[in-house]
Order: sequence, then structure tokens, then C-alpha cells
Amino acid sequence: MNTIGLLTSGGDAPGMNAAIRAVVRTALGRGARVLGFRHGYDGILEDDHSEMRSVDVGGIISRGGTILRSGRCKAFFEPAVRAQAGQKLQSLGVSGLIVIGGDGSLAGAKKLSEECGISVYGVPATIDNDIFGTNPSIGFDTAINTALGAIDRVRDTAYSHDRVFVVEVMGRKHGFIALEAGLAGGAEAILIPEIPFSLNQVCEKLAAGTSRGKKSSIIVVAEGAGSAHQISQDIRERSGFECRELVLGHMQRGGNPTAFDRVLATRIGSFAATQLMNGRSGEMAGFMNGAIVGTPLETVLSTDQPIDSERLLLADVMAQ
Amino acid sequence: MNTIGLLTSGGDAPGMNAAIRAVVRTALGRGARVLGFRHGYDGILEDDHSEMRSVDVGGIISRGGTILRSGRCKAFFEPAVRAQAGQKLQSLGVSGLIVIGGDGSLAGAKKLSEECGISVYGVPATIDNDIFGTNPSIGFDTAINTALGAIDRVRDTAYSHDRVFVVEVMGRKHGFIALEAGLAGGAEAILIPEIPFSLNQVCEKLAAGTSRGKKSSIIVVAEGAGSAHQISQDIRERSGFECRELVLGHMQRGGNPTAFDRVLATRIGSFAATQLMNGRSGEMAGFMNGAIVGTPLETVLSTDQPIDSERLLLADVMAQ
Amino acid sequence: MNTIGLLTSGGDAPGMNAAIRAVVRTALGRGARVLGFRHGYDGILEDDHSEMRSVDVGGIISRGGTILRSGRCKAFFEPAVRAQAGQKLQSLGVSGLIVIGGDGSLAGAKKLSEECGISVYGVPATIDNDIFGTNPSIGFDTAINTALGAIDRVRDTAYSHDRVFVVEVMGRKHGFIALEAGLAGGAEAILIPEIPFSLNQVCEKLAAGTSRGKKSSIIVVAEGAGSAHQISQDIRERSGFECRELVLGHMQRGGNPTAFDRVLATRIGSFAATQLMNGRSGEMAGFMNGAIVGTPLETVLSTDQPIDSERLLLADVMAQ
Amino acid sequence: MNTIGLLTSGGDAPGMNAAIRAVVRTALGRGARVLGFRHGYDGILEDDHSEMRSVDVGGIISRGGTILRSGRCKAFFEPAVRAQAGQKLQSLGVSGLIVIGGDGSLAGAKKLSEECGISVYGVPATIDNDIFGTNPSIGFDTAINTALGAIDRVRDTAYSHDRVFVVEVMGRKHGFIALEAGLAGGAEAILIPEIPFSLNQVCEKLAAGTSRGKKSSIIVVAEGAGSAHQISQDIRERSGFECRELVLGHMQRGGNPTAFDRVLATRIGSFAATQLMNGRSGEMAGFMNGAIVGTPLETVLSTDQPIDSERLLLADVMAQ
Repeated sequence: MNTIGLLTSGGDAPGMNAAIRAVVRTALGRGARVLGFRHGYDGILEDDHSEMRSVDVGGIISRGGTILRSGRCKAFFEPAVRAQAGQKLQSLGVSGLIVIGGDGSLAGAKKLSEECGISVYGVPATIDNDIFGTNPSIGFDTAINTALGAIDRVRDTAYSHDRVFVVEVMGRKHGFIALEAGLAGGAEAILIPEIPFSLNQVCEKLAAGTSRGKKSSIIVVAEGAGSAHQISQDIRERSGFECRELVLGHMQRGGNPTAFDRVLATRIGSFAATQLMNGRSGEMAGFMNGAIVGTPLETVLSTDQPIDSERLLLADVMAQ
Repeated sequence: MNTIGLLTSGGDAPGMNAAIRAVVRTALGRGARVLGFRHGYDGILEDDHSEMRSVDVGGIISRGGTILRSGRCKAFFEPAVRAQAGQKLQSLGVSGLIVIGGDGSLAGAKKLSEECGISVYGVPATIDNDIFGTNPSIGFDTAINTALGAIDRVRDTAYSHDRVFVVEVMGRKHGFIALEAGLAGGAEAILIPEIPFSLNQVCEKLAAGTSRGKKSSIIVVAEGAGSAHQISQDIRERSGFECRELVLGHMQRGGNPTAFDRVLATRIGSFAATQLMNGRSGEMAGFMNGAIVGTPLETVLSTDQPIDSERLLLADVMAQ
Repeated sequence: MNTIGLLTSGGDAPGMNAAIRAVVRTALGRGARVLGFRHGYDGILEDDHSEMRSVDVGGIISRGGTILRSGRCKAFFEPAVRAQAGQKLQSLGVSGLIVIGGDGSLAGAKKLSEECGISVYGVPATIDNDIFGTNPSIGFDTAINTALGAIDRVRDTAYSHDRVFVVEVMGRKHGFIALEAGLAGGAEAILIPEIPFSLNQVCEKLAAGTSRGKKSSIIVVAEGAGSAHQISQDIRERSGFECRELVLGHMQRGGNPTAFDRVLATRIGSFAATQLMNGRSGEMAGFMNGAIVGTPLETVLSTDQPIDSERLLLADVMAQ
Repeated sequence: MNTIGLLTSGGDAPGMNAAIRAVVRTALGRGARVLGFRHGYDGILEDDHSEMRSVDVGGIISRGGTILRSGRCKAFFEPAVRAQAGQKLQSLGVSGLIVIGGDGSLAGAKKLSEECGISVYGVPATIDNDIFGTNPSIGFDTAINTALGAIDRVRDTAYSHDRVFVVEVMGRKHGFIALEAGLAGGAEAILIPEIPFSLNQVCEKLAAGTSRGKKSSIIVVAEGAGSAHQISQDIRERSGFECRELVLGHMQRGGNPTAFDRVLATRIGSFAATQLMNGRSGEMAGFMNGAIVGTPLETVLSTDQPIDSERLLLADVMAQ
């Protein structure tokens, strides 16, 4: 394999740049050329690419975002568009493609591979940690530290004013960020989409805390479990607590990656490039139980990343 | 003066604890006792106070919030309630009171002094920097660095996705946080309540940037100049830019104070305690043109802190 | 088991407080009393202890260091002293003891258990990550992020002045911090005690980098592999590069724990308390391949934590 | 003036990039061309320069170091070399030069101007804050926050182990960093070159603290007042305290600039470009008592920046 393609797709995540660097330098070290496509799959369709040298990825390991830019290419849902992309890649001599992104991006890669005979290898980068085959995904550790920083700050005000704060973090279908940041932030309650909850019970918990002398509380909620605004209002009405809300939003995506995310991205990116050049395809590299392994995209895309409900119980014990 | 009272009132600000430490240790060093009242003026009315020893303020210089807790005492608008507070203070032997807080808290202090013969000295602590007689106020530097951290993070995503981001910061009547964080964050536009603006012009500016090759932009708006949600929607409709919003909210209040805020709070707090014990009253300590000075509360409360419109022009030049 | 003892011993590590909180709240939740001993084993010998209530561990999850203080009790190497400690514990009704610390502290716990019939359970907290049975140990993630912060800062100066910087991190016998921080920091060379290296080869690598256009470099060295001062001088003499040094030292121990360390400490601490109360003894709780498990102290203390030499090769590829 | 030159010289400081951006965009906005010289004055002598467009300074406001690189050009002490530099500048059509750096760099600028008829304007960037005509200099605020971060971390360990820590910060002739970081860090003693001190008195202070119940202490020392190693050893010998040392070193130079430094650099850089283009020369732009003003280089270079000894007294009161 002489030329491999590389792109980042979907929501950006801290560590994408570290993964780009790892793919490029590993591939160059094994004698390949690397073509970087800009703005995700759009870069293939629109001939927006350039060759990546070692110096082009110098100094990027410490930066958030992605130097290749990203995109959400809706046209790529069309088989005809994918066929076109496959032809573009073949005409450029690209026989293998590395896709850095979330599950939507990986689903596109799988189809491209199956339909067009392009070898593909996936690198899971998303702050949501919702991809089976890696735990955590690249960007998750940075995102929970960012969310934790905000929770720590809000705790100062909650304490100073004897208030309840509801902090809404990202996670439409999954509560990974909420659970981890809530546990780390010592949240009095954590509300996630996977586990049903009752606001009445939350209010009882807050009242029990008050009777023990606890005057301020933090509730962390994943956006898929409810909006901070609605929950805050509900708690106010049901319990009379002075309640404020905070929505972290897009701030969670950016920032310089943590040490963990840089090392994870470097290991996963390098593994992916090596596997692709060794002739593997249709897989995703990931961190599973302490090792970097490849998992078939078929398995990745058909399996739900399970939430660790033990941590929710643990958070409850810790809030006593 | 043998016993001085101390309280924090209004919205909490990073550096309040450093100011508490400075007041306590300065007063103790000059032979006074210090009574700390909890939850602002409520602590006087509800006999919620305790004597503060040097060790009680050990290690707090680095922490956000206020160990004395704060409060917004609406009852204190009533002359009868203030009279009651004055009697409480006198019965405790408190002849002088130091109030750490924003303009509402300082207005209460002024009235208490005029009506009840209690000496008072103000310490300006608010993230809003909207108090005449000090520039900046205690907490402002930390707040703009917090806002800047969020802007830097959002810049990663804006860059990666070629997007416009509208970031809403605190400031109902004033644009100090927006102006400083926007200038430091390299914002393409800064919208503040003091200076009229046109969204059409903002859109033209964005379009001009695009034509020069700039693909992502950050707009910083003070809450008093418009909501991120509304402005984001307007820009999308008028210009077609892909536009996202972020509301920083209460996160801006908390966090460990910066070096600047710790030194400022220490200097102002110590100055206030010294002046009060030297017989001064009805003033506020502040940082003006490089020195710590006292300004009559009358002047403080009747003068608007002017915005530096030069910086807005500078931000425009920098966005070219 | 009605009363369990708790102490922190050896070098402090970020996350010790989170572990204390987890032990206390888990034990209280299961109906036990917790006695906290101050300054490590000295607290047992010197009757320096107090009962820990839930409120005593409120708000400490976010703080570095240890509220129980730590110590290195040399007298504890004497069997007679340990016998005395055993009697003290029995007279206090303490039938089980949780020890939070590094390998020296855990060795003391093992002997205390074997000789005096006290049940013990270990919680591995050290920035060095040199304890078999957990990977990483509590405090490691925070320490590598601290080291990384320093490396990122030094990179600015190295780049601006075309210099080589040698950064010395902690690790007398092991290179875990050096390897992880070096990989995350994009170091051009990483020198650790476990793997022999040649400074001539390092100089050749630097020269090869220069010929490719790389004008600045970072070398990360574990203290056990050489001093920054000596290595810096050697490189200057052998190669003529302008070389500077930085010794991170004790700064690496402190700081607010990262999200990862807080969650890890909470999970491990809670697991340890649960196991001890379930009648287990002579084990250490740890994080192994994605799960929290107990490992006999005998195994922990007789097995060397292996370094991942793959990462060193990876760092080499990345430095090309 | 159609073409102005720009360089950064001497030790790098956070905010240099923000100043570069401000000079470039201000000059372009007024119709000038800007030539950026690399590696300080060497860039003039060695024809190492390129034209700077607006896009070249995009995104650099948030980064430490200097994209123009810096250097300490010893040859520039020779009049003949300066004459050569003057000719190079004239042959390039550069009639005015902006020099960003410390006092050595500004002294070179002054001579170049006097001897060769080149207009010059200075921008004071150094972490040391030792330049008269600005208080603070660009980079100082970031450096003290970096030092403060290290002091806060060390405080955790000092507290956990009842230890004294001696932290050595930069400052050969001046104690500005030591004084500010020490005051912000709540240091028990601050030792600076400008004010004589007695280690016996320091030990007495530590002993007095111990007798009041204070078990750990931080001493901040400027490198010009003594080495942490020597002072630590002296204190151990004289007092028996368990004493550790930490040398912050080059870490203090780097890092992303704070909000304050970014705004300061933007204002000063823009002012300097404007003044130079308005025909002013032989001056340095600086922040004095709340405003940006120009001061003749003659005055700047012949006046010592005074230390604020009040702050040292304040630190003493605060350490009680």
C-alpha cells in the first residue's frame, strides 16, 4: 500500500490532532504516502486534499480541534455519492482510508469499504464515549475534565449561596459524560437517559441532605435525560429550593487534550495505520480492558456501549 | 475600635476569601477583634456570627466563593430593618463594619452608616467590574480568564467546522467582561449594552472576513446586549452562516482566583481594615490608576463606571 | 466489624482525599464507625486520631494532598513497634485498617496484619505508578498532566529559541511518569531507568532531526535514569546544541486531582471498604484491565510493575 | 512610512505573539507593509525575514513563545554590526522598526536609531517586569500565575507532610515575580534581592508560626536573593525544620498568555505601531497608572523599576 487517505469527520474531539499525527508519522515510517482530505468526506468529493509530511503534523499533538477540519457530509448517505467517492480515491491511488470520528462517520466508512473495495480502518474520536469497541473514546477524558472544571466552579457559588445547581452536559442518548463528571464532581444526583429517575426522589434526596446539614447541591444531567432549565424549574416548584441552571454546551468539545487523550490517540492512531498497512480492513482500533485492539466495524456499529450502573449506585453512596 | 464586623454580600466573586483573610489578619495585627457575619446582612439580623481568628482564614486565599457565605437581603431595603441591624451591631460592641460585595451591598452599608452611626468601609468584589472607584473590581480578572478559557475552547470547534459562534457572557448593564474577554479572545465582534450596534453590520463584517479567507468567527455578547440564542438565530437568517451559541452563565462566578485577584483583594482588604481602624468611614477602598485609594461611597454609588470605547475600536482593527 | 481505622502514609498523591471520602462514606453507609489516624502510622502510635463523620469529608474530593496528613514512620520497621500499634488498635476496637499509600506503606500494613491479627486492606495511591496490582495508581493521571503542562510551557521557549530542553521528572526506579508525559508531550527522546540508552544515540537523533528542519527538541528523563543537569551538559559537550534543563520536582505531587483520579480513588476506596467489611484482608484494591479487583498484598509486594516498552518504540516513531 | 520592520528579541515572554499580531494588523490597517525578522537582530543581519500578512498572525493571540523566534545577538554590541544592520534595513526600505523584548533588546534599538537614523519604537515584553516605563511588562501576569500554580501545588504537599518548602522563582536583580507570586500564594516569607534579609529572622518567623499551630510554610525566593538549595539547607541546619526545595526555572517563560497579558500586548503593540507611523521614534510604549503611554528609551534605560516595599510589609502582616 503506497498511498493512504486520512480524514476527520463528525463533531470534533480533543485528541483528533494527536491521532492525525500518529497516523501520518506511522504511515510515513512504513514507507507510505498520506493524503489528508479536508472537511471529512466532503474533501474526497470536492478534491480538497493535500499530501501530509511529517513537518505538517509537528506541534499539533497539544491542540484541540482538527487541522484537517471536519464536516457532516449528508450526501454520503447516498450510495451514488459513495460510489463517486470510491472512484475519486482510486483515481488518486488511495487504496486504504483511515477515518477519525464518531459512529456516523464509521458507518460511512464501512459502507464505502463494502461498496467500493476501499480498505478502511476506523479511529474512534468523540467526546460522547458512545462507541462500542473502545472505552473510553478519544476526547472523552478531556471533555469530562472540562465539565468537571465547570462543576467545581459552580460549586463555589452553590456553597456561597446555599443553592442547588443543575448542570446540563452533553449526551443525547447516553449518560457517560454526566456519570463520570458527576461522580468526579461529587454531584448529589446524576440523571442519565439510560436509567429512569423520579424528580420527586431527587427532591427527597435534597431534603434529606438539608436535614443532615448539607446546604448546597449539584445535580448533573445529560441533555438526553432532560434540560437543566426544565429540571431546575421542576425542583423549584416541588421543593422550594433556590435552584439555578448551567448548560455547558459546545465548550465541552474544545480545549487542549489531556495527557490521557494524547496518549490514547497516539496509540490508537498508530495501531490503525499499522493494521491498515498490514492488510486489515473494516475494523476500528480501540482501547479495551487495557489494550489496543481491532474490532470489526460490523460489531462496533451493531452493539450499544453499556453504561456502568454500578457507578450510579456508587454516586448515591457518595452523596450521603 | 476593639471589635469590627465583617460580611460578604451579593453575588459571590473569586477573591472574596482573599479579602476576608486580609481584613481579618490586618485587624488582628492592629489589636482588634473581628466578628464574621454569615450570609451577608442576614447574619446580623439573625445573630449568625462567630469570632474570626487568624487560623480560621488560613488556606482560603486560593479558594473561590466565600467562607462567610453570601446573601441578598431584601429586607435590608427597609429603614426599620436597618435600624434593627444597627442595634444588633451595637449590642455586640461592633463599632465598625466592613462590607465586601457589589454596589447593592455597598448602598446598604452607606445607609446603615448614615442612619445608625455605624462606621462602614466597603470592599468592591464583583465579577462585573461595574463599580466606580475601582478598576478592576475584585473577581473581574478571574472571571475574564474563565470566559477566555471557554472562548479558546469554542474556537477549536469553530475552526474545525467553519462556524460562527456567539458566546454570551455576564453583564446586564455593562459590557466589561464581554469587552475584555472578547479582546483577549480575538473575537471578530463584541456586542455590549453601552454602545449601539447593528446586526447587519456584524453580518457584513463576517462576510468580509469570509471573503478574506476567514472561515470561522467568534462573537462575544454581553447578556444585556442580547441573548446568544436570538443573535445566533438572527445571523443565521440574515447571512446563512452556520451559527452556534454558548451561554457561559454562572460558571463565570466561581473558580480559584488568579494571582491578580488575590493580590488585589489582599491589598484592598488590608487597606479597608486599616482605614476603618484609623477612623475613616463611608468610603470604599479601590484600585485606581495603579494605587489603592479610598473613595466616598456617595461618589461610588452616584457615578457610572465608564466603558473604554477605545478598546472596541481596537477590537475592530484586530479583527481585520 | 463496627470500627475501621483509616490512614494515609508515604508521599502524598492527588486523589488521596477522594479515597478518604470514599472509604468513610462507604463504611458509614454500611453501619461502621471510622477512625482516622493522622500522619500515617505515627497517628496510631501517638493516639492522634478522631472519628470521621460524613460531613468531615465533604468538599475534599477536589483537593490535592491529604486531610489526614501523611508521614513516613521509620519506627514501623521494628516488629516491637508494630506490636504496640496492634495493641493500640485493638484497645480502640479497631478490627480492620485501610491504608492509603505506596508500596512501603502497604508492606507495613501486611506485616501489621500478619503479626497482630488486624485485618488490613490497601489502597494504592502514589504518583509513581510503581505498584503491581493497579495500573494506574491513584495520583498518576494528575501527575502526568502536571508534568505535561510544564513540558508544553517549555516547548514554547524551546521553539522560540531553537533549543534543546531536558526535563527531569520523578521516578527513581521506574520511568512511568517520563514515558507517559513524554509520549503525551511529543518528546524527541525519553530516557528511563528500565531501558538502557546511549547519549550518543540521543545526540545522533537530535542531529537527524535538525537535518530534517526540526530546530527545537524536548528530552524527558526520569530522575533514576540521570539528572537533567548532567544530561544537558553531556549533550552540549557532545553535540554543541544549545541545551537547557528543567527539574519538575515536588510540584508533581500536588494539585487538584483530575476527573480520572477522582473517579479511580472513589471506586478503589469504596471497593476496599466493602471488601474489608466483608471479611477480606491482606489485599489491595486496584484497577486492572478495566475493572476494580483485589490482589493479595503478597503478590503486590513481590511483583514488579512492568514498563510498556511498546510505548518507547511508539515515541521513537512519533519523533520522526 | 510604507514599510516597517518587526522583531522579537531576548528571552521569550507570553504575549509576544499577541503583540506581533497587534503591530501587524494595526500597521496593515494604516496602509503599511510589515517585514518580520526572525531570531531577533540576527534576522536583519542574515536576511532572514518575510512579509507579514493579516492571515499570518491569525490564531496566535492565544499562544506562548514567539512565531518570529527570538535570539540574543551578541554581535549587536558592536557599532560596526549595527551599522551593517542599518544598511540592510535601508536597502529593504524599512524606515521604522518595532522591537519587542526586554531592556537589552531595547538598548540595541536605541543605539540603532541614534547611529543609523532608523526610527524605532519599543514594546516591553519580559516576564521579569524590570523595565521602567511599564508596570507590568508583557508576560509578567502569565508568569506569576504559572509560579502561583506551582506554589499552590507544593502547598498540598507541605500541608500533608508538615514541611517547609523553599520555592525559587526567576529574578536575578529584581524580586517582582517573587513578591507578587509570594503574596498571591500566601507565602510565609518572601526573599528578594532589593531588600536585605536575615535567615535567622526567617527561622524565628517559622518557629513563631509553629508555636501558633502553623505546621507548614512556603518561602518564595527570587534567584538573585539566593538559591533554594542553599536556603533550604541553611534553614534545616539552623532550625531543624524538615525543608524541601523547588526551582521553577524555565517553566515560568512559557504557556498560553492570560487575558491580562493578551489585552496588554494588544494595546501596547497597537499603540507602538501607531506612534511609529505617526513619526515618533526612540520611545517605548508602556502601561503606566492605567493608561498606555510612550516613554523615551533614554528614560526607560536609565531608570530602575522600583519595587513596592509596601507589599513586602503586607506579606508579613498576612503571614501572621
